Order: sequence, then structure tokens, then C-alpha cells
Amino acid sequence: MDTTDDAIRPSKHGDDVAVNGTDEDKTKDKKDKPDTVGKGPAKLPATADPAVAKELQKILDGAYAEERERVRAMLDDEFFRPQIGLPLDEARDSILDRLERLRDTGMPKGVFSKAHGGTGELGAALTGMELVGHADLGMMVKSGVQWGLFGGAVEALGSERHMHLVPRIIDLDLLGCFAMTERGHGSDVQNLETTATYDAETDEFVVHSPGLSAEKTYIGNAARHGRMAAVFAQLHTPGSATDANHDPAESHGVHCILVPIRDEDGNPMPGVTIGDHGYKGGLPGVDNGTLMFDNVRVPRENLLNRFGDVDERGNYSSPIESRNRRFFTMLGTLIRGRVSVGAAAGAATRSSLTIALRYATRRRQFEGVPDQEKRLIEHRSHRLRLLPRLSRSYALALLQNQIIERLDAQEKLIAAGEWDVAEPTDEQQWKQRETESRAAAVKAAATRHATDTIQECREACGGAGYMAENLLTVFKDDSDVFTTFEGDNTVLIQMVGKELITAYARGLSDLDPMGMLRFGVENVGDILRRRTPIARSVQSLMDRVTDREETDIFDAGYQVKLFGDRESSLLKSLARRLSGAKKMDVEDAVEAVDAAQDHLIACGWARVDSMLLEALVEAEASLDDGSPVKDVFEQVRTLFALSTINAHSGWYQEQNVLNGQRTKAVRAAINDLVDSLGPWADVLVDAFAIPDALVAVPMLDDAGVDPR
Amino acid sequence: MDTTDDAIRPSKHGDDVAVNGTDEDKTKDKKDKPDTVGKGPAKLPATADPAVAKELQKILDGAYAEERERVRAMLDDEFFRPQIGLPLDEARDSILDRLERLRDTGMPKGVFSKAHGGTGELGAALTGMELVGHADLGMMVKSGVQWGLFGGAVEALGSERHMHLVPRIIDLDLLGCFAMTERGHGSDVQNLETTATYDAETDEFVVHSPGLSAEKTYIGNAARHGRMAAVFAQLHTPGSATDANHDPAESHGVHCILVPIRDEDGNPMPGVTIGDHGYKGGLPGVDNGTLMFDNVRVPRENLLNRFGDVDERGNYSSPIESRNRRFFTMLGTLIRGRVSVGAAAGAATRSSLTIALRYATRRRQFEGVPDQEKRLIEHRSHRLRLLPRLSRSYALALLQNQIIERLDAQEKLIAAGEWDVAEPTDEQQWKQRETESRAAAVKAAATRHATDTIQECREACGGAGYMAENLLTVFKDDSDVFTTFEGDNTVLIQMVGKELITAYARGLSDLDPMGMLRFGVENVGDILRRRTPIARSVQSLMDRVTDREETDIFDAGYQVKLFGDRESSLLKSLARRLSGAKKMDVEDAVEAVDAAQDHLIACGWARVDSMLLEALVEAEASLDDGSPVKDVFEQVRTLFALSTINAHSGWYQEQNVLNGQRTKAVRAAINDLVDSLGPWADVLVDAFAIPDALVAVPMLDDAGVDPR
Repeated sequence: MDTTDDAIRPSKHGDDVAVNGTDEDKTKDKKDKPDTVGKGPAKLPATADPAVAKELQKILDGAYAEERERVRAMLDDEFFRPQIGLPLDEARDSILDRLERLRDTGMPKGVFSKAHGGTGELGAALTGMELVGHADLGMMVKSGVQWGLFGGAVEALGSERHMHLVPRIIDLDLLGCFAMTERGHGSDVQNLETTATYDAETDEFVVHSPGLSAEKTYIGNAARHGRMAAVFAQLHTPGSATDANHDPAESHGVHCILVPIRDEDGNPMPGVTIGDHGYKGGLPGVDNGTLMFDNVRVPRENLLNRFGDVDERGNYSSPIESRNRRFFTMLGTLIRGRVSVGAAAGAATRSSLTIALRYATRRRQFEGVPDQEKRLIEHRSHRLRLLPRLSRSYALALLQNQIIERLDAQEKLIAAGEWDVAEPTDEQQWKQRETESRAAAVKAAATRHATDTIQECREACGGAGYMAENLLTVFKDDSDVFTTFEGDNTVLIQMVGKELITAYARGLSDLDPMGMLRFGVENVGDILRRRTPIARSVQSLMDRVTDREETDIFDAGYQVKLFGDRESSLLKSLARRLSGAKKMDVEDAVEAVDAAQDHLIACGWARVDSMLLEALVEAEASLDDGSPVKDVFEQVRTLFALSTINAHSGWYQEQNVLNGQRTKAVRAAINDLVDSLGPWADVLVDAFAIPDALVAVPMLDDAGVDPR
Repeated sequence: MDTTDDAIRPSKHGDDVAVNGTDEDKTKDKKDKPDTVGKGPAKLPATADPAVAKELQKILDGAYAEERERVRAMLDDEFFRPQIGLPLDEARDSILDRLERLRDTGMPKGVFSKAHGGTGELGAALTGMELVGHADLGMMVKSGVQWGLFGGAVEALGSERHMHLVPRIIDLDLLGCFAMTERGHGSDVQNLETTATYDAETDEFVVHSPGLSAEKTYIGNAARHGRMAAVFAQLHTPGSATDANHDPAESHGVHCILVPIRDEDGNPMPGVTIGDHGYKGGLPGVDNGTLMFDNVRVPRENLLNRFGDVDERGNYSSPIESRNRRFFTMLGTLIRGRVSVGAAAGAATRSSLTIALRYATRRRQFEGVPDQEKRLIEHRSHRLRLLPRLSRSYALALLQNQIIERLDAQEKLIAAGEWDVAEPTDEQQWKQRETESRAAAVKAAATRHATDTIQECREACGGAGYMAENLLTVFKDDSDVFTTFEGDNTVLIQMVGKELITAYARGLSDLDPMGMLRFGVENVGDILRRRTPIARSVQSLMDRVTDREETDIFDAGYQVKLFGDRESSLLKSLARRLSGAKKMDVEDAVEAVDAAQDHLIACGWARVDSMLLEALVEAEASLDDGSPVKDVFEQVRTLFALSTINAHSGWYQEQNVLNGQRTKAVRAAINDLVDSLGPWADVLVDAFAIPDALVAVPMLDDAGVDPR
């Protein structure tokens, strides 16, 4: 079928940055109220300075710049480009080949401690895995399954008796699965149905799937390569001498136990039924499958017993008394996976923006003066499609760096014996929760942004964008499930909202879901004051605003204030709305919370947006005034801030925070900013420093991009 | 990798229907201003009446209900489900198998006239092709290439000497391509580079691709099955006796000529180079490829000469004097393809909504009272994700029916000799332009909605939604390019905007792009009055509003007025903004128009939204007051209207059309409506009457959907 390609529309319905106001309006705004709206930064030189790319790169590279350079050099090889159209088995084996190449670089060792054959360089390892997302998300996901989730579970949940497995896991000598999700239970880990019941007679655990809804699903490495699975199951023990009151029908809660699933020849172990999910929306090289256990017996020692153990007589013990805290401590192993997924989604998005913007600066498109066809980027509507998204990618990259650095610091404290995971100090508990909340926020933000932006990039490249060789559809398909796995975004963003409401109002003692709902917030101001203090550079900008009653929409401090207004107002009204729930019975409270679910989600997103802006403002504060890099960066930050405000223009007007004149001025400023940044598009994506071999797609090396 | 599935978030960032207002606000609104906001329709019974599905179906089925039933019965066969994971060649051949089955039903005959071996039942044929979109978009696209575009070009642009080909095309005895798009030129058909030069010595045309940017790209049927191509090329003739002033270097404009591309053994013809696009983002069964011509000679008679002919001495003649009108008359053949693409995208969207909503009414999800896990649909946020989109699908289905009926009526007039395509009356020219504008609007609206909604459906089904067997990812991948081909949506929606501005202000004499920009609009009211009159039922509702100063947000007339306000205000400000352009020189005018491109696009979307609401209101007017089906339909219409208004809440406030209290009331009403319609979700999708074999995916027949 014939294709007329090369879209030049700015947004899905032309109203993300809708031009409802006219230029006249804009002029009027500027004339009538110059003081309240602000003048805006000067237009950047029309000829971009390529040297600025390196300086922007320095900001984005962050703490692990050296590791980035090392990994980039390694990945600058067409071998790492996604393979297209392979049959399922070949696709899977080819991804395993890539894992072997990664192993040979030593990168995976970073996620394991020195004591167990790793290097303990978690930050560097996570940064390396992020960069793998520029290349092939299948390789990233399978790495995540093997080293992050399976290996991570063994090291984090096991004890010395399991550590001999770690070097085999690093070496890919033992391929394994992380078998948590069940068919009947997605995000609801606490109510998994699989059981692990201790049989004292044989000193074994019996692992069993009581029904179809207990089937482990979507399990990576299950369909083809895995030999062992870390199975999450309800732990049952018979009553025993010291545990006489324990009802054997009652579980000690979800624990993790190692179950061999294939023998040396690759055949399923007795009692283990393995299914194959076959083709998915993407990630053909990741062998997702299902696992069912029919009274499968494994030695007692297979229990990963760091946080809950059973002795040979069947007595249960745990270093963590609170069942809830035990559960959440074990789940803490998920955090690295979440961070990795967000990081790789961010990398795939930057690859896509690099491809789409390089196409836009090369490809000519009609609708101009005959024989002077413009390049796509020379159309304002095309700039509006891609540049605000690019600015959000900048913010996400910086926030991603922060969370990786945070995890690395925590890991180093643990390695040094200064942080006991089973018995953290109060301070450490706060920090852990804050880290989990931030990880959830970053994952949800990065993956949502990936899905939307890669789609936009595909469409912005027209028919060429639909050709698999140009990689945009591959990135789209592979990253699509990222919004779902490692914590569905809906659930995660609610977690961010709940954390906002509860963490600082109550304490950590009561983490069950109903407890989180029955919070008792009297003073929202308290909550906001008690959350992680923002960076000093950001605070000083905000103070300036308060002092001067600054209302210049280009002012960073005022922008932070506007973002904060959205966050705090939403939180206040949510708190009012939910405050009745604590007096209700359970059913009514659930109903009240369900009706407020959207509100909770809106709070979570408002928090994420604040975090993103603060990350940009903080980075900007480190740049020299008047330097070209600062001039460019300032416009990127302002574009992010104003396009986010514009997306919520209805809310800002409803709340009388901004009037219609000001929201129109915001939109006019966005137009000016994309006009100013347009000629800098190549520089802005060069700053991502993506290895050429990974983004040099055919449509960029094509006579068609410039028909003259 | 582990997957936590089952998303229950309402919208990408929780703010499509952001709950920024609180329930308190809502109560207050109702208390303070009951008259201005309105009370809203009563909540529907909590137990849905399945009989209503059939009545809703009758509304949606429209004029071709019988044909629909016939085609549904035929498609109710797993044979027609998309095949997943086939190697490229097998995928392509399997789609051809499906085309043979379609041929055997006689359906394709509808697009050809009785005189040439068809039936002339265009409306029925297009409706049938729409339904094919429920099954397999690859089958629909390849059908569209073969019968719609290739066959359509031969019949519409050829003369009697070509009509012997039509039965062979219908029978799939001659497979062909529609070779319009070139690598260097997407939507810019007027500037194609391929040439067809007449050589009087041999009485042949020489078809030639002067360079790589002239390569025909994305051509369906080219890579594997096509034997002939309808090639669009610049027509050149040497100067001749009667045409002495014609400069041979100058083209007579783009014409279409038949070029054999493969011999009987399937080998490329001499001088023809065929490339293969290989894997794309989807549609693996459609064999898109490239074509290059190296001085390929074909007989003079191969020129499709209905609107432009060359005699053996090289004299050019045409029944249409205006070169521009000739060009647009030839391009008119594209309209059916556009309508088909929109229709099939609508069908695929309805299939996806059917799957996602059936999953939502069956699948249980945690976060409720323990052991009383709610079904997904019982979460308001889940209802908010899917039900407003469902209401838009209703509106689109109705609008789609209108455009198909319109094309059918026009075709019947042409067949009856009452409409001469080469010499239409003024009235017919108006109608033709209006039809083209509506077709563009519907195509852009349906395909945009498909891309966004199928993605939402995928995410709303969590991990299960990512499994290819559940079809959502297949629909997403296959439909993704629909926003791009058959006219990129960005270009089409601008066409809608331009039509709004120019068609009724000027007349048809000057159709070149610059002319369209240099319009002279003095009175925007005139434009609006002169566009196609809206249906009487809609008009009477609007009159009532004007009479009573009605401001009840639930009132259909007031809703139409609010939509009209958006359309006319945007148009007025755009007209003001562009009115200076006609005095500028070309470069400046292009610049001014480019800066206003977003505005033009916003106008186009406002027009589309008005058309959609009017289609709903018109259908509703035919229902009996107080009937259950009317009660349901009224809420669907109101949900569509209010969610569209909510999406533009920033604009409505900026323009002082609605204040913040009212936009909050709109949002509260949306919540009430999805609560009311939630229990009716199955009924609402049953009304689409999609053959079971096409939507009975594994996740719906799965113990996992109800873990209890």
C-alpha cells in the first residue's frame, strides 16, 4: 500500500501545546504585563556550537562518566544492534550470546559483593546496564533476569550456604529464573498461592502449585534456558516443639526457595511443568514462560533463609519480628530491577530521540517554497513534537543518575557493615523508604515517557519510521511492557502518592495496605516539610521567589514554586478527602479510597514532575553564568518547566494559580523556546553520546533524506 | 523477568481526567449552582439489560446491517485471526491465501462498476472491508492495495482499453502495485521525480527514475506478489505539430501509467529493480518494497488516459483544462483508500476495546477487601481509562457510516451518468470537496484514536496484554502505520483546517497550496454558515439552547454549542492571524503559515470533534424517549462530550467560556458517568457484534482472570 510519510504534526491532537491563543494575544501579554510574565532568555545563536555537546554530556554523564566511556566503547559494535525477524529460538540464543559478551567484560560483577566474587561497584554496574538499553532491550532484560533478579535474590535473600552459586550465576554457568508473579496475582505478592511446605521426615520442602491461578507466569529464562528458579511461595511448617501454637494451615508469609527446573540435558525436572509464552509484543529474545509445581521436593537448604529460616525439626525463625517488615525487606530486592528498567527505558528513549531528531535535521519535507523544501526541524510543529519531550529526557537522565548514586552509596554502607538490612536504624528505614519511593517514581516516569516518546518518534519519521531497520518500532515493541513489569506504573505511582501522604505523617510501624490508607494526617504542611529536603541550590532559588514575590515564568525559582503548588494543593485536597476514611469500616474505606484513586495518582505524578524539575535546576546551578552551555541548558530546563505547566493549564486556572493571560504566555514562550533550540537539535542529542553503531540507521544514510 | 501486571491507572499521567477537584468541590458545585450545571441523567440500573446490546448494535450497524451480518458470519472463523510469528515469506503467502477467500465471497466486486465486472455496491464493499479490520489488518491492507488502489487506479484513471484488466484484478489473476510515493517525496505528490517520456518513434513511453530520491518506496505487493504497477510519473511529450510551444523539459504534470514489473516466472522485468522493505513495525504479511525504473519502455496504450492522453504523434490532450483541477481529480481516487483505512482502524480499535473490557469485567485484581478482590472494571480509575475511549469509538463508528453512505450515493450518481467526474457541476464540486475533507477528517480521527486506544487497552490488560496470542500487540503493531499512510494525519488534519477556512470563502477555482493560504476571509460567520448544514435534529437542539440560554452541561444542544464555540473561536483567531499573509511575499507568507501550523491543526481537530458529537446527537434523536437504549446511549454521548470538553479545559477557561467551577463539574460528571456505565461495559462492547472467533483470546478463557 502506498504511504505518504513524514508527519509534521506537533502533538496527538494538536493541543499538547495547542495554539489556541494567537500571536496577537502573545504580543498583548508582553506589552500589557511585562513584569508579571517576564522577558525570557535571549534566543540562542542560529548556528549551534558543537563544542557545547561535550559540556552537556558532562552534566548528563554524572558520577560514572568513566564507566560510561568504557561501556560505550564496548557497545560501539553492530553486533549489539537488535536482530530483526529471527525465529523465536534463534532470537533467544542470540540474546544469550550477547549476555556472554557482557559477562566477558566483567560488568555483571558489579551487582555482587566482593565477598561473593563480585566487585561491589553497584553504581557502575547499573550505569552499564542503562547503556545496554541503547543497544538492545532484550539483552538488558535477560541480563536483568539472570544477574539482577535471580542472582540478586540468591545473594540478598540467601545465606552463606548459597553463596557458592553466585560465581556460577555471574559466569552464566547457572541460568535461573525469578519466579514471583502468578497468573491470578500480578502485583499482589502477599497473596501468592504457591506453597512450600516443610516435611520433617525427609528434611525437604514440598513446593506446590495448588491450582491454575497459582501458575507462575511471564517468567524470564523459563521457556528455554533456565535451570533453576528462585520461587516465591507461602512458607508452611508443621507445628513443632517450640512452635506449638503455629497452625500448619497458616503461612509464615511469602519466602523464596530455590527449585531446580531442568536437568542437565535441559529436560523439565519431575513434577515441574514448563510452558512457553511464545511471541510477545516485543522482546522475542527473552524466553518468558510459565512454571507449575506438582509436589516438587527440594532439600531444606534450598530455602533462601536470610530473613526467615526453618530448622530440621520444622521450627521457623526470623531476625525480623514484624511479619510486614520482613515481607517488605525481602521485596526490597526488587528495587534494583526497578531502577534498571527505568534506566534502560530512558536510554532507549534517548536513542529514539537521537534517531528522530537527526532525521528531522536532515530530511526535507514539502509545504515550503518550491525548490526550497524545508528540513523537518524547520517546521515549528515538528519542533513542538520532539523538543519538549527531549527536555523531559534530560530531566529524567539526571534523576536517574541520582537514584543510581543513592543505591550505590547505600550498598557501600551495607558492604562496610554500617547498614544492617535486617536491623536498620530508624534513620536508615526512612532512607530506605524514600529510596523505594524515588525508585518507583523514576521507573514510572521513565517508562511512561518511553512509551509515549518512542511512539512520537516513530510517527515523526513517517513511513521510514515504520521500517524495522530504522529501529524505532523495535524500541517501541521491546520497551512497551516496561510500563507493566517490575511494578505496574499504576501501582507504583500510587505508591508515590501514598508515600507522600503517609511516610512522614506516621512512621514505619504499620505498612499493611489498609494501614497506609487509615493514615491520620492533620497538617499537610508537616508532611511537605518533612519530606527529603531539596537541594540547597534549589531552595535558595525558591527563597528568592518568596522574598521578591517573583512571578517571572522564566525564573527557575518561580517554576519550582508552581510545580510545588500543584503538588501541595493536590495533596491537601486528597488528605481532606481521605481523612474520613479512618473512621469508616473496611468496606467503606476501600470504596472511598477507590473513588480517590485518580487523585492519588495525580499526586504521584505531581511529585514526579517536581523531582524532575529540581534535578534540572540543581544541575543548572553548577554551570557558569554566561557560558554557552548554561544558556542552552537554561532553555532546556525552561522548556521542560513550561511544557509541563502547559499540560496542566486547566488545573492552574481552576485553582487561580495562573490566569488565562499567563497560560497563553506560557504557550507563546514554548513556541519561542523551540524556535530558539531548533538549530541546536543535533547538539542536544549529541550530548547523549550514543555509540554510532547503535543509532546509524539506514534512513539517516539515505539520499532520500535530502532530495535535492 | 518478573512481571507485575494488571494496570489500573486511568490515564497516562493521571490527568486526562485528572481528579484535581475534590468530591467536596463537586458537592458544592451542585449545591451552589444547580441551574447552571444541570443535574445529569439518572444512574443506569446496576444490572445491565443484555437486550440493549442488540438495539445499540442496530444504531451502529447503520445502512448496511445486512451486509454486516453476512460478512460477520463469514469472518467468524479462526482462519481469519492474525497469524503470529511466521517467517516473512510464509506470512506474505498466508495473507494472499486470505485474499483468495475474500475474493471467493465476491466482496471485492463491490468496488468496481457493473460495466467492468463488478457490482457497483461500493457502500457494502467498504463496509465489508471495514469488518475485515476486526480480523487481520494485513489482510485488509493487502486487499486495499490490490482492489482499492491498484484496481481503483485502473478503473478510475483508465479508459475502455484498460477495462479488460479489471476482472483479472478482481480474480487475483493480476496482482498489482500502486506506485506513488517516492523516497524523496512523501505527501508531496505534485513534485514526484519519476518520468514517463513519450517516444514517438516507437510509440512507447519511457519510464525512468532519475535518481535515488525518485525510488518508489513502501509499495505494497512490490516485494513478492505484484506483476504490474500503476506508476505515478511526470508526463513528458516532445513538441509536436499542434503543441509547438510545449517545452519537452516541462511536464504535463503527474499521470499514472501501467508498467509490468515481473515476468510470468516472477523475475523482475528488464530495467526494473525491485527492493524488499523486509520487516516493518507490523503488517508482516504485506510485501512492501521499492521500485526503480531504468528507462523501461511500455506501449503508449499503458497510459491510464482518462484525464490526460497522448496520441501517436505525441500530442497531449485532456478533458480537464485546469492543470490543478486535473491533478486533484486524479488524486480523488485516493479517497476510498482513506475511508477504508479509517474504517479498518475503527474496527481494530473496537476489537481491542472488546478484548480489554471483557478482560476488565472478568479479571480480579487486588487492592480490595481481602478475599473480595474486585474486578478491574469495579475500579473507577480503570473505568476512566477505557470508557471515555469507548464513547469516542461509538462516535467514530457513526461518522464512518456517514462517509461510506456518502461515497456510495456519489458512486451511484456517477454510475447513473448523473455525475461526470471530469466535468462536475459547481454543486458537485462543492460536494466532492466536502467529501474529501470529511474523509480526511475521519481517517485522521479514527487512526489517531486507534493508536492511542489500542495502546491503552494493551496496558490496561497488564502482562497478559503483552502476550501476542491476546492480539492487542498485533493490532497495535499492524495499525500503527495507519496514522502515516494514505495521507499522513498531520497533513490531513491541516487539510481539514484549510478547508474550513477557504472552501466556502472563495470557491474552487484556485486549488494550489499557496492559493489556499492566500484566502480572503472577511467574515468568519459566513464560513461557518456556509459549511454543510448540520442535521435538523441537531439544529433544533441548538436552537433550544439559544432560546433558553441553556447552560446545562448534560444538555446535548449546549454540548454542541460548546464544541462549536471551540471550532469557531479557533477559526476566527486563525483567520485574523493569517489575514496578513495575503499581502506578504511568498517567503514571508510561508513563514507566517508555518508559525500558525499548530493553530491550523487545532482548528482541524475542533472540526472533527464537532462532527463526532453531531453524529452521536443525530443518532440519539432517532431513539424513543424513556427507552432503555436511549438512556444508555444518552450517557455514552454525554461521556464523549464531557471528556472532550475536559481534555480542552484549559482552553475553555482561557476563553472564559467555562469557569473553573464548571470545568470541575464536568470532571465530576465524567466520574458519575463511568460509574453508571461500568456495569454496562459488556453490553456496550457486545453492541459491536464482533465475531467470536476473532476476539476469543486465551486470556479471556483463563482461570487466572478469576482467581477465586
